[in-house]
Amino acid sequence: MTHTIHGKQKLLARTRRLRGQIEAVERALEAEEGCDKVMHLLAAARGALAGLMGEVVEDHIRHHLVDPERHPGALDENATEELLDVIRSYLK
Amino acid sequence: MTHTIHGKQKLLARTRRLRGQIEAVERALEAEEGCDKVMHLLAAARGALAGLMGEVVEDHIRHHLVDPERHPGALDENATEELLDVIRSYLK
Amino acid sequence: MTHTIHGKQKLLARTRRLRGQIEAVERALEAEEGCDKVMHLLAAARGALAGLMGEVVEDHIRHHLVDPERHPGALDENATEELLDVIRSYLK
Amino acid sequence: MTHTIHGKQKLLARTRRLRGQIEAVERALEAEEGCDKVMHLLAAARGALAGLMGEVVEDHIRHHLVDPERHPGALDENATEELLDVIRSYLK
Repeated sequence: MTHTIHGKQKLLARTRRLRGQIEAVERALEAEEGCDKVMHLLAAARGALAGLMGEVVEDHIRHHLVDPERHPGALDENATEELLDVIRSYLK
Repeated sequence: MTHTIHGKQKLLARTRRLRGQIEAVERALEAEEGCDKVMHLLAAARGALAGLMGEVVEDHIRHHLVDPERHPGALDENATEELLDVIRSYLK
Repeated sequence: MTHTIHGKQKLLARTRRLRGQIEAVERALEAEEGCDKVMHLLAAARGALAGLMGEVVEDHIRHHLVDPERHPGALDENATEELLDVIRSYLK
Repeated sequence: MTHTIHGKQKLLARTRRLRGQIEAVERALEAEEGCDKVMHLLAAARGALAGLMGEVVEDHIRHHLVDPERHPGALDENATEELLDVIRSYLK
């Protein structure tokens, strides 16, 4: 079964912002800016991508690990929060 | 509810190996070894710690997100594998 | 002093490929694909961004930490390789 | 040439604290604590290890990439700071 992502519009908006950040890297390279500028733009894009991944992974955990219609209430809320805490600490 | 970890002996063995790697960093610092040596020991310890975290996170996802006695079969196997794939790519 | 990046064309090509990967995430979201698909596209984009950052950081270390015209031969080749080894282990 | 690490006592103190954190993981496993507890201890140890690596890498960059006796002033201070900024963003 394929699961559609929740919060599609919010995720699309974040993805478009991320694309804008990659385009800024392209412009900086074309304009032959210093590599300090390019490193900073890439570091910002990396943070944005990690944040986006965090959203999608959280959606996956909350909505797709357990089918809520067939198994309502099966996903343990505390255990889910603990897992998300650890994952977020890696997605920085 | 608190959940005891599965595979306690295997995890303990990995943790003791990791402690040995940290002790090797201590000895290298005490012996005033070069910082190339210290960096390599730390990089190896980091890999070992990430592997250990991966084991514990996988155990948490497979056994504690859903109580298998109360909700047998509720955890979607495919969705779990997809999540573990993504998490492992971050735990390298 | 601002330093222009070396290997501009190669970096631009990698950046454009990365932009293409972000656009694939956009298309997957618009087509309401499953979040497994979106997670995999994001994981691939993350790898590409890390590789690009690795190239820029290596360029920065090799060419801009020391002005080669004013201080030829000042950058220690072995120490540079050891540093790049450690940085690459984080850029995976 | 091998370079002794600067700030040996401070690094040793941090390494011993890190060893204490790994020993706390061992005790938690032996006491059959929940895996939420173990995950949090591991996440803290990972942060400590990353901070220690950051110190050693900074020492390596500041003192060993360029031999300060043979090439005084060759290491560009601004370029060094920019590099350390990027590396720190990965060592979190």
